[in-house]
Amino acid sequence: LRRQQDAELARRLSALEGADAAQLLEMLPGAARYRVWDTLPTTLAGEALEEVTGQVAEDLVGATGDERLVEVLGALDPEELSALRQYIPAEVFARLEAQMEALARRQLRTSSEYPLGSVGALMGHDFVSLPVAGDVASAVAALRERQPLPEQTDQVFLHDEYQRFAGAVTVTDLLLAEPDTPLRELLREDSFSLQPEESGDRASQAFERYDLISVPVVDRRRYLIGRLTVESVMDHVRERAEDQALASAGLSEDSDLFGPIWRGARERWPWLATNLLTAFVATRFIALFEGSLQQLVSLAVLMPIIASIGGNAGNQTIALFVRGLALEQIKRENSRFLLRKELAISLINGTIWGGLLGGVATVFYRDLALGLVMAVAMTLNLVVAALVGVAFPLLAARLGRDPALGSSVVLTFTTDSMGFLIFLGLATLVLL
Amino acid sequence: LRRQQDAELARRLSALEGADAAQLLEMLPGAARYRVWDTLPTTLAGEALEEVTGQVAEDLVGATGDERLVEVLGALDPEELSALRQYIPAEVFARLEAQMEALARRQLRTSSEYPLGSVGALMGHDFVSLPVAGDVASAVAALRERQPLPEQTDQVFLHDEYQRFAGAVTVTDLLLAEPDTPLRELLREDSFSLQPEESGDRASQAFERYDLISVPVVDRRRYLIGRLTVESVMDHVRERAEDQALASAGLSEDSDLFGPIWRGARERWPWLATNLLTAFVATRFIALFEGSLQQLVSLAVLMPIIASIGGNAGNQTIALFVRGLALEQIKRENSRFLLRKELAISLINGTIWGGLLGGVATVFYRDLALGLVMAVAMTLNLVVAALVGVAFPLLAARLGRDPALGSSVVLTFTTDSMGFLIFLGLATLVLL
Repeated sequence: LRRQQDAELARRLSALEGADAAQLLEMLPGAARYRVWDTLPTTLAGEALEEVTGQVAEDLVGATGDERLVEVLGALDPEELSALRQYIPAEVFARLEAQMEALARRQLRTSSEYPLGSVGALMGHDFVSLPVAGDVASAVAALRERQPLPEQTDQVFLHDEYQRFAGAVTVTDLLLAEPDTPLRELLREDSFSLQPEESGDRASQAFERYDLISVPVVDRRRYLIGRLTVESVMDHVRERAEDQALASAGLSEDSDLFGPIWRGARERWPWLATNLLTAFVATRFIALFEGSLQQLVSLAVLMPIIASIGGNAGNQTIALFVRGLALEQIKRENSRFLLRKELAISLINGTIWGGLLGGVATVFYRDLALGLVMAVAMTLNLVVAALVGVAFPLLAARLGRDPALGSSVVLTFTTDSMGFLIFLGLATLVLL
Repeated sequence: LRRQQDAELARRLSALEGADAAQLLEMLPGAARYRVWDTLPTTLAGEALEEVTGQVAEDLVGATGDERLVEVLGALDPEELSALRQYIPAEVFARLEAQMEALARRQLRTSSEYPLGSVGALMGHDFVSLPVAGDVASAVAALRERQPLPEQTDQVFLHDEYQRFAGAVTVTDLLLAEPDTPLRELLREDSFSLQPEESGDRASQAFERYDLISVPVVDRRRYLIGRLTVESVMDHVRERAEDQALASAGLSEDSDLFGPIWRGARERWPWLATNLLTAFVATRFIALFEGSLQQLVSLAVLMPIIASIGGNAGNQTIALFVRGLALEQIKRENSRFLLRKELAISLINGTIWGGLLGGVATVFYRDLALGLVMAVAMTLNLVVAALVGVAFPLLAARLGRDPALGSSVVLTFTTDSMGFLIFLGLATLVLL
């Protein structure tokens, strides 16, 4: 019966596309995941492996014998293999390299040369390049021999007699031109190329801005070394967005929602430890005022409001600045203007909403002085939040780091500590 | 001199692409923005207006006279106009509609019919459809007359004798086929089409999964009504990611970083008010224990740690679940498994890290009972965080709402209130 079930499973699985199989693997916990993985046909398994998130890939590679791994990975393109390299045991990788053709081996080395997320690492090696000296008829003849063309071929690249990149002609131009038109006449003046060292983020901006489908990647000496497609760029954009959302909660993009419990627990440790430490240090500022708290216990009740409102306001500033930096709207020249604007906003909102909060506290505790202390403390903590909310993303960006990463830890620590210090300090001075 | 400067500015601006002009407008504050806007050539101004974020568009439209607005907007495609509709004064819109050709007016109505973010609202009306009965030579002849072809034309749509959608042929297939090949032979079996009611999110998944460049949009009766391109899909994906990042900080996607201060202050009010209210209510749980705090002031110092660590742990769970829901990995069948897993993780981490925190507190305050209370309270609050972190996104998704939206408010409110209640309650029972 088990064998019959397996056969049925294999039949159903082989009808899937790589991306669907990848989604299935990610959704299945433990034993079920391995069973599906072992049953997938080799080629499909390779396609799926390339699509799953990091931890799932690691998990599957770890559960697979070397023989099957060589088979599964052998079906991948050099750039796909290069992206998985970190998960593949060295001896398996060496065997794969050895069994490759010379061209593919060279492509694998090229892809591995560039850092993750760069154009060189994202580009593919599957493209068509024809001599620029020919005409449309000769190009069509060459393309017919080359069939099937690579996916997302909207343009054909051209090279000069020294094999250097000479431009591109679009497939539609080829289709609509007379057969005897020289290719040079169809060359687009505004044709775009990328260098392998450029970042995938810059490349994706160009794709969005100029509505590109594929772009030639050219090295410093103008040799064509690869092709970046809108498909890879979209994957990159999506992954970056997901990474950022997870990273801002202190998680790795590789997190496997369906993985083992123990690993799930452990991957949260760095974040837990960081937050425990910062919370512990922030509350030391409360400990400075134990005497005041004992005299006026309402301070203990009200202090978390001041701390938390600062954190929330600062998060808004950070969210706006992270977007402004991503869209390259924020430059050195206008950052001073933006800082002044955020400070003005914090003063306005501190006056209005701090005043309201102070009014409520006055009524609640029948103590006007306490209300005034709350209003002033809230305003000052909003100013602190604006300062950190502007300074942290700008500083991170200037240091070449992701401005979203770690921002919430630093912000919460500052607005908590300063919130406690300002509120309890003012209260001690004024009320006691 | 001023006139000379203006002429120089106009010359430089007219060399820009629409997207570049849009970025410039977004980056400029106040008067400088209006000056650039007034100097932009009409067509470029229209292209730029279509690309800027909502508040900037509203700002610019508000500062423009009706005459110029009609000129600027007159150059836009119906679907672009439809996307800007909410910012355009009704009488200007009516004039634009009146001066349109019948076809464009019909297209404008079609685009306005579908909700924002649906395929119908994202699709363009610029596509090529040819009779399926012809051959390659007749298709090429028809395309030559139709030049220039719409951007991102990777395939040509075909219709039958009743004008119904009959499939698509790729431009590369047309290029490589012999001129007398019937188009029917080149029809792709797996060709993909969308309905206008489908959501842009579903469509973008299909584009990513199957590496599409353009897709026909077909109504229920199989008439071709539009075309969705990878360009619009990429814009949509990017905007959704930005919206989510801003929305989770309680800001609208339309926020204008460089806009006036007063508007910047006001747009943060709903979030400030919400957080003030929830913080105020959460601290009412502290007020229940004023007596205990007076007896043991160290409780006031330690309670923010318990509250804040719960919030941070819950945010991790939410981030994982928001991603899992976006990737459609989480279904009704496996949500129970995931809840059990998150609860197990919170118990494990509560035991380990709560134990550590309790140990530190014991040493600091030379009070073993206090340390035990801290350890137990932290574990319980992590369990609360896991429950809310799983339940909120699942419930939001089931109600058809964005699972990221509002999650942090609900989470922080719960983990703060329950953190104070659990810690101070336990302390009162055990220590006093």
